[in-house]
Amino acid sequence: MHRQISNYLMDKISSGAWPPGMRLAPQRELCRQFGVNRSTVVTALGQLSALGLIEGRRGGGTRVAEVQAAADEAVSSPDPARTDLLPVPSAGSWNAYVEEGVHYPNLPTVQDINRLEYEQGLIRLGTGEPAPELLPGSAMTRVLAELSRQTLPPLSYEEPLGSPGLRSAVSRELAKNGIQADPDSILITSGALQGLQLIAVGLLPRGSTILLEKPSYLYSIHAFQSAGVKFSGLPMDEQGLQMDGLAREARRSKAAMLYSIPSFHNPTGVLMNAKRRQELMEVTGQLGLPILEDGAYQELWLDTPPPPPLKALDREGRVLHLGTLSKAASPGLRIGWIVGPEPVVRRLADIKMQTDYGASSLSQLAAARWLEGGYHEEHLQHLRARLRKRRDAVLDLLQRHFTGLAAWNVPAGGFYIWLSLDKPVPLRTLFRTAHKAGLLLNTGDLYDRGDNRHLRLSYVYASPAELELGLPLLAGLIRKLQQPGV
Amino acid sequence: MHRQISNYLMDKISSGAWPPGMRLAPQRELCRQFGVNRSTVVTALGQLSALGLIEGRRGGGTRVAEVQAAADEAVSSPDPARTDLLPVPSAGSWNAYVEEGVHYPNLPTVQDINRLEYEQGLIRLGTGEPAPELLPGSAMTRVLAELSRQTLPPLSYEEPLGSPGLRSAVSRELAKNGIQADPDSILITSGALQGLQLIAVGLLPRGSTILLEKPSYLYSIHAFQSAGVKFSGLPMDEQGLQMDGLAREARRSKAAMLYSIPSFHNPTGVLMNAKRRQELMEVTGQLGLPILEDGAYQELWLDTPPPPPLKALDREGRVLHLGTLSKAASPGLRIGWIVGPEPVVRRLADIKMQTDYGASSLSQLAAARWLEGGYHEEHLQHLRARLRKRRDAVLDLLQRHFTGLAAWNVPAGGFYIWLSLDKPVPLRTLFRTAHKAGLLLNTGDLYDRGDNRHLRLSYVYASPAELELGLPLLAGLIRKLQQPGV
Ligand SMILES: Cc1ncc(COP(=O)(O)O)c(C=O)c1O
Ligand SMILES: Cc1ncc(COP(=O)(O)O)c(C=O)c1O
Repeated sequence: MHRQISNYLMDKISSGAWPPGMRLAPQRELCRQFGVNRSTVVTALGQLSALGLIEGRRGGGTRVAEVQAAADEAVSSPDPARTDLLPVPSAGSWNAYVEEGVHYPNLPTVQDINRLEYEQGLIRLGTGEPAPELLPGSAMTRVLAELSRQTLPPLSYEEPLGSPGLRSAVSRELAKNGIQADPDSILITSGALQGLQLIAVGLLPRGSTILLEKPSYLYSIHAFQSAGVKFSGLPMDEQGLQMDGLAREARRSKAAMLYSIPSFHNPTGVLMNAKRRQELMEVTGQLGLPILEDGAYQELWLDTPPPPPLKALDREGRVLHLGTLSKAASPGLRIGWIVGPEPVVRRLADIKMQTDYGASSLSQLAAARWLEGGYHEEHLQHLRARLRKRRDAVLDLLQRHFTGLAAWNVPAGGFYIWLSLDKPVPLRTLFRTAHKAGLLLNTGDLYDRGDNRHLRLSYVYASPAELELGLPLLAGLIRKLQQPGV
Repeated sequence: MHRQISNYLMDKISSGAWPPGMRLAPQRELCRQFGVNRSTVVTALGQLSALGLIEGRRGGGTRVAEVQAAADEAVSSPDPARTDLLPVPSAGSWNAYVEEGVHYPNLPTVQDINRLEYEQGLIRLGTGEPAPELLPGSAMTRVLAELSRQTLPPLSYEEPLGSPGLRSAVSRELAKNGIQADPDSILITSGALQGLQLIAVGLLPRGSTILLEKPSYLYSIHAFQSAGVKFSGLPMDEQGLQMDGLAREARRSKAAMLYSIPSFHNPTGVLMNAKRRQELMEVTGQLGLPILEDGAYQELWLDTPPPPPLKALDREGRVLHLGTLSKAASPGLRIGWIVGPEPVVRRLADIKMQTDYGASSLSQLAAARWLEGGYHEEHLQHLRARLRKRRDAVLDLLQRHFTGLAAWNVPAGGFYIWLSLDKPVPLRTLFRTAHKAGLLLNTGDLYDRGDNRHLRLSYVYASPAELELGLPLLAGLIRKLQQPGV
């Protein structure tokens, strides 16, 4: 058994998949991975260490040895058949490279979440995508079947703005929400996230400032910060972004843009009302301040449709509007769009051509069919009914288990409930204890760096049964962490 | 008629699609677009100008007026029904934004090409993608039909490295080329271009230097320059990158990486032979210099398979290897991969998650089926036969029309012939005169900034009939530009 493990590890090292200096997973983790007990792992590691292939570093765990060191020693493989272990000079480790790129790494918690979302068995209480059973499996299959009924058009590189067919379909879709945009004003992106990324590197000089709601989805991604853009967070209330102070802060910070999620805000679920939208357009109009409107959840109203998007009120080309099929259709399509003045979308299209030559043509074909074939509208109606039920079930559970512990909003759409704990808790600790207890959390510090008393709950991912189990468990963990002396 | 045009233009302006300060297309272009004569366009523009909606600027063409100016005037619409033209305060123009982002715009010629590739009727002599009739329309349709036979898996967000199914398929594909890489060492990207982009922002500190062949595909894209990385070009011969001088230049420039396209180089078509590959691995091994191997054309051999890729010779994890389905299958899939040490691909995957949350799941599903169902191998065999024919036809045409005017190589694979003119020509001028004559060219300056005597010809896009027409035409244009006094 240990022979098998040491062979596996040697393969990783001799092929260069694990380069010199790379830190090995902790022994505990290796035991789990191979399904063996500690002593077997210790024996295997001992062999590798004797070969000079790995080395312990004080405080740094076990790492792959700088092979150069091993080159001077005459070592023999424990498995005489293996001749691929002849030491070779080291490329120097990749460590420096991995740390030095211009682009920031994700926040550690985000990295954890991205990884843990693929760990089996965790109850995901805050995940921002619909559960597999809420995705339109069979409708999407029908779309593909429809596409394959005739010979597909060749899947070539697309025009910089994206396929004309999909842009027309999106244009018609936008018109339903009061946005007049012809296909020349629409850039197809690989999801709304890529839209943000393109705007971050394409429109804003290093050092400029973006105003945004606090908390905001944007704090959880690093696109703007990696491009050297600064954030200035503005307070919200139940009607959305607050207006007092906006003009002052815009002037003080010489803000270049305002980012807002007016409909079913991520993470708070807040819906900006019509009056506030009007005010926002007026105040920013006087300032000449461009707006980046993120409409990711716009169609996902549960009770009544939201007021028209800011872009529908825009007569000056001052609003860039982001949309996506991720939330109401399927995230895996990776189809979103930016609506804006033609020179702006052309500039962004040019960068997109440099980044990845455009979104998948296959996804663009499927998305156009999805919208034009009426699948989208049909799925939305179905989805709304199911999300309404889930939302109400979660509100019930909160009532039962979080009364006296936290307050929350009743979202009129979108995916999220913003849980405000009555007393602060150390959120990283809560994240870790919850993980040990089988819960995956989206803690408030992801959306507001200094936060220590919020959680983003989602009613769209975990199953009703998981929620019945997970939410009381969460309440218990929070209570424990809030006890004096913890 | 002019009423219709002025209404169209007013819509663009009043909706903000054409923001203040935006430059209108030249009158000639507007005539073409609307299919009318000059005087109609002049009348329409006159009306808009009288309304204060557009203004002529000395040397700056006609631009959309800063609407603020118009706000003071009482103007009445020529079309009394239109009340949407009430002047509104201006957001200030987007011009500054469009110019100030961190990411460089594409080279002007590349922008022209990206746009002109969608203009009808041009003969594209240098295009780097297979013509629609060479793409696997019906095989890809069969793949979709196969996928739609059972209910699709839900199209969710994928794991950071990409779908496990596709990574396994790619791993098996790589093994055929002698590359041992298990799925944990493979990151799925939206085409090889995105791989380059991720490496540019993820692994290299601002100000570092990359060695590369001169000329190179990499000069035609701005990913690395936008990330503040410098280039140092090394000479090639018929066996590929030359070895003498490499070590000296690597030390002098403190190079962080070497980028190479060893198989069927873009733009020269050169194939690096096995001996040179060995030498390259040795020289860079001694320097501890990591290699970025671009294998985009690797499978597209025409006569005999190329020597194993550099990654197959790599025992230290010193080579990052890029692959793609764009060239041998379909560019519109937008599926490529990076193979490298696990910590490196994990770092790049993290940035990918911040950029666009991963490649299209639908494309990943189709790509996995494409590879596993044997479609890829079958298509490749078919494609090779057809490309061989096309290559030979172009070589024939060159023989007939370019003898005494230029020299060229006989490519053993890939898409390109690198035409070396005996005498220099002003390439931007050649590009423009050729465009007027209906030819779209990829001039040498795209691949080597200082070049003035090369063209990249491709035998994969223009039809045989177009080539018969286009190549002699091109020869004539070049002759004219080389005449003394021009
Ligand atoms: C507010 C908001 N914008 C944008 C996105 C990005 O979505 P996608 O890139 O899948 O379209 C998300 C997803 O979480 C979101 O919540
Ligand atoms: C050498 C080389 N690398 C990478 C690419 C990018 O191809 P894709 O992003 O479509 O995979 C190309 C395409 O022109 C190329 O020629």
